[in-house]
Amino acid sequence: MSRILDDFNDINAVKKMSIEELNIFALEIRNFLIEKVSKTGGHLASNLGIVELTLSLYNVFDLDRDKIIWDVGHQSYVHKILTGRKDKFDSLRNFDGLSGFPKREESKYDIFESGHSSTSISAGLGMARARDLQGKDYDVISVIGDGALTGGMAMEALNDVGFRKTKMIIVLNDNQMSISKNVGGISKYLSGFRIDPTYNRLKKEINSTLRKIPSVGNGMAKSIHKIKDGIKQVVVPGMLFEHMGIKYLGPIDGHDIKEVSKVLKLAKNIEGPVIIHVITKKGKGYKFAENQPGKYHGVGPFNPLTGELCGGSKESYSDGFGEQIARLAKENKNIVAITAAMPEGTGLEKFSKQFPTRFFDVGIAEQHAVTMAAGMASQGLKPIFAVYSTFLQRAYDQIVHDVCIQKLPVIFAIDRAGIVGQDGETHQGIFDLSYLSHIPNMTIMAPKCISELKSMLTFAVKQDYPIAIRYPRGGDNPNVSMSSIQNFKRGKWEILFQGGKIALVATGKMVQNAVLVREKLKDMGVEVTVINACFIKPIDEALISELVHKKYSIVTIEDNIVHGGLGSLVLEYVNTLEEKTKVINLGFKDEFIPHGTVDILYKLYKLDASGIFQSILKLI
Amino acid sequence: MSRILDDFNDINAVKKMSIEELNIFALEIRNFLIEKVSKTGGHLASNLGIVELTLSLYNVFDLDRDKIIWDVGHQSYVHKILTGRKDKFDSLRNFDGLSGFPKREESKYDIFESGHSSTSISAGLGMARARDLQGKDYDVISVIGDGALTGGMAMEALNDVGFRKTKMIIVLNDNQMSISKNVGGISKYLSGFRIDPTYNRLKKEINSTLRKIPSVGNGMAKSIHKIKDGIKQVVVPGMLFEHMGIKYLGPIDGHDIKEVSKVLKLAKNIEGPVIIHVITKKGKGYKFAENQPGKYHGVGPFNPLTGELCGGSKESYSDGFGEQIARLAKENKNIVAITAAMPEGTGLEKFSKQFPTRFFDVGIAEQHAVTMAAGMASQGLKPIFAVYSTFLQRAYDQIVHDVCIQKLPVIFAIDRAGIVGQDGETHQGIFDLSYLSHIPNMTIMAPKCISELKSMLTFAVKQDYPIAIRYPRGGDNPNVSMSSIQNFKRGKWEILFQGGKIALVATGKMVQNAVLVREKLKDMGVEVTVINACFIKPIDEALISELVHKKYSIVTIEDNIVHGGLGSLVLEYVNTLEEKTKVINLGFKDEFIPHGTVDILYKLYKLDASGIFQSILKLI
Repeated sequence: MSRILDDFNDINAVKKMSIEELNIFALEIRNFLIEKVSKTGGHLASNLGIVELTLSLYNVFDLDRDKIIWDVGHQSYVHKILTGRKDKFDSLRNFDGLSGFPKREESKYDIFESGHSSTSISAGLGMARARDLQGKDYDVISVIGDGALTGGMAMEALNDVGFRKTKMIIVLNDNQMSISKNVGGISKYLSGFRIDPTYNRLKKEINSTLRKIPSVGNGMAKSIHKIKDGIKQVVVPGMLFEHMGIKYLGPIDGHDIKEVSKVLKLAKNIEGPVIIHVITKKGKGYKFAENQPGKYHGVGPFNPLTGELCGGSKESYSDGFGEQIARLAKENKNIVAITAAMPEGTGLEKFSKQFPTRFFDVGIAEQHAVTMAAGMASQGLKPIFAVYSTFLQRAYDQIVHDVCIQKLPVIFAIDRAGIVGQDGETHQGIFDLSYLSHIPNMTIMAPKCISELKSMLTFAVKQDYPIAIRYPRGGDNPNVSMSSIQNFKRGKWEILFQGGKIALVATGKMVQNAVLVREKLKDMGVEVTVINACFIKPIDEALISELVHKKYSIVTIEDNIVHGGLGSLVLEYVNTLEEKTKVINLGFKDEFIPHGTVDILYKLYKLDASGIFQSILKLI
Repeated sequence: MSRILDDFNDINAVKKMSIEELNIFALEIRNFLIEKVSKTGGHLASNLGIVELTLSLYNVFDLDRDKIIWDVGHQSYVHKILTGRKDKFDSLRNFDGLSGFPKREESKYDIFESGHSSTSISAGLGMARARDLQGKDYDVISVIGDGALTGGMAMEALNDVGFRKTKMIIVLNDNQMSISKNVGGISKYLSGFRIDPTYNRLKKEINSTLRKIPSVGNGMAKSIHKIKDGIKQVVVPGMLFEHMGIKYLGPIDGHDIKEVSKVLKLAKNIEGPVIIHVITKKGKGYKFAENQPGKYHGVGPFNPLTGELCGGSKESYSDGFGEQIARLAKENKNIVAITAAMPEGTGLEKFSKQFPTRFFDVGIAEQHAVTMAAGMASQGLKPIFAVYSTFLQRAYDQIVHDVCIQKLPVIFAIDRAGIVGQDGETHQGIFDLSYLSHIPNMTIMAPKCISELKSMLTFAVKQDYPIAIRYPRGGDNPNVSMSSIQNFKRGKWEILFQGGKIALVATGKMVQNAVLVREKLKDMGVEVTVINACFIKPIDEALISELVHKKYSIVTIEDNIVHGGLGSLVLEYVNTLEEKTKVINLGFKDEFIPHGTVDILYKLYKLDASGIFQSILKLI
């Protein structure tokens, strides 16, 4: 039997379909998503949840004219299928293949890129204001999840939208979870009028009571009319938004294409800003994802029939972090853990179960997380904020202003440092050394292996100053075995191998590569020294001075942008010495790194063992 | 007549005063503030507005036990007077003198430092949670202005407070303005129940109507009771907070010590989080400040009798910026200007009056400002975000994620770069080159004089990529006269003077110093080359190569942390060349810079002409 999807080429065809056809089409898209993502991996559950909503949007709006902005962006697969990219799904998230996020160079229908959360209302408002100033006439629709609303910048944008009354449509896709179960007052507020039986009962009773109130003359009737208005406000959900000056419509069933289309058409004709509250089910239509939407949020390849995920049992840095932090928390009651809506991704699940009162999921709110940690540290707790490198970018100012100026002992457990791979530009963790190492009072460490991450954590919880520990996605290289440092001294590096006149000064994941490079060189009869720069800040000035004095050439190796990172620090220090030596900085150059698997990207950017080996050959 | 203030030594004495005495004391404190700040300069209006509120807090709470956190921190003068620092007010904001913000090393009663906005709820929540985990018993009170509530991180924190029901008190000091008049839906919401006569009338009418509704049996009565509850919610302000799970009390008159004390005592005994909405008048009790609270927000010395500000008529970079941007906007209709609640400080007042529809004050919301600008740029507008260097730190992630990845032509007009002076650690603009220059696709410029800022803006609005232009507080050095560059070429530097074998590569304000240094050296018979590094990114690689080839020693000079700034960039580039030369990097070292006047601090950190001269003497 032929599918609608097979011949689907024109985005406007959606407008001509009947509701029945659209429902069939939705089913086909869902099957397509499960089939494709089961092979490539990707963001499954959120896309399954948004099929009908996307179809409804394209049923009502004109993509050649109107602007739809997808918050977080990983919910754009259906959009991509509908805008001429269905044949590229076999290459999803692979190098040179289809991106898992909106990309302007991929399609004219991807009008704004996103990967981090909570940006869509701001971007949409900017477009709407451009439209008004340029005298143009198009609709702007920002599609944002309820989780993303906990991000402060979304609230900043709502505050601005409501004040100026700029015409735009915000579709609040409320699936009661972002990546994990949502937290926070706003989520509570939304679910209040979603599920609270008291609320529904109250609404019913008030309505019937109002009908029963006897008519008692004109003045009285007028007053009662006012009461009705007042009550309407109580019982109409969305007062938070209405109070802020944004018209609220909903809640409506986001899987009912007819209903959603109707409300979208209504919104289109309202002057000023509108928020449409749409309830959807994450993972909809695939029972494994419906039951465990967190597990199927972002997945590797899986068996579509059984839902079983392939591979992935190897211990990761996140696992090692989670295990060690739970162990340390047993001994030290002051240890608390904080996450910004990512308890699973950061490895904190175990801790959260063992120490529920000492575990704080603050929502997608990295800024608040950091300053709250500072408040905790000021009173003697040992807060550990576990966060991905790319998301900590949101809290740069709080790290400077609230943690480092006051030198408060907050620990940053920075996961996904370096290349994260298939999520691409918006997610690579290649800036953290540069945005952290110029901040006074900050100490930065990086373990060469999972076991060393554990001993770093043991060290960090005993110190009384801010410490960032950065570690990569994935696990140890099975081809390298090393013993981890057990006792750290601030700013003291580890010499792993001594020999020759070249010193490889590598940090974090790059140490394992440096060890492999040394073996290759040894096979060629060339000896090198390998140093584990376990501290990026402060660097080991004594050791560097000694290397310079002994006429070693120094090669720094880091999985970060070179400018502002370890290489810069070493070079700047060497430059202050009387004696000089040759310094070569390996790392990422001044460019964003696209999507692709971690291994492919390291190879491509010459930071795998063989790339580093080639760079060093030039030295010899 | 002797004043209460003269003998006031014990913070707890406030508790023993009668309301009458407290009112007299308030008057004395106000006079003290006007007298002292008229001599030193400082934040006047906000402190005048908070006198009674501070006294009420110290009347009710025990400072040796309870924790009071002052948001933004410049409203802490009354607190400082009361906590043993009144005799230090002659040194306010001077180097080695009293800080204008809470400083932990200054007093044990300054429990958390602040300078940037919107941090107090997060910090307070951290302390409250520490208290609960450690089994301690104290109150935590965060005092936050209504302007600061527009900052996203405050909303992130409220979201978390309301969800977990942690006991803490938030005092919302609502003066309807932060630095400028507040904007946004939240402000509108607050003022709704402050001043809306409809609202007050409705409340009255509903109450009288409810009394008139005839009693019609038991079931009916019950229903009506429910209606009353419902209506109460409508007419009781603060539903936004109540919905989020935070008990709301207010609004109350913040200058009524008796009333405020009563409500604070009530709040103390409520379990869970409470927000107290206090209405105050900024500048209270000093008519000049009451009438123009914006003007007297942060002032230099002034005549206390006439309110006249001393000095300050010299043209500043902010003035030059404001003037030029208004000029350019006349020719180019796509130019729009954005501020995060600082139209006056950034020089945008003129623009805002000439082009009200193209001017966007988004509240204290730098994150939203940047992403909204990205949205605007994506549709062909030329958005210029005028912002202080230190506050742009809040939007680091948005610069990376929304502007630079997409290479959108947003212009960042970064005012107050380098030393800002008396506001101290939290406000110095010494990190921007480091947090911006490692971001791919970013172009960074800095003018050597006000006139050059103008031509840079003319250049910038014609380009199609992100550009940051950083410039300092204050104006041109009257001892240096230079002609400005009229035509820029991306990455091309200007040779101001040629000679000798030392090249001073200076950027921004430091160029004027380099010129003065050259004159001093010339008097000694030593020639040097002076180069205006008008682009920090990209650097002028061709020129540097030439300097290296011709065996010049290079001295980079910047008013930024050296690591990650111009000096690093030059050094890293020279390091990639075959030929080498001596490179010396002058700038700030790895430390926070305290408060003091701009001139004193540059002198102290050896970045005034004479300090730079000394450093260069060592080279010769």
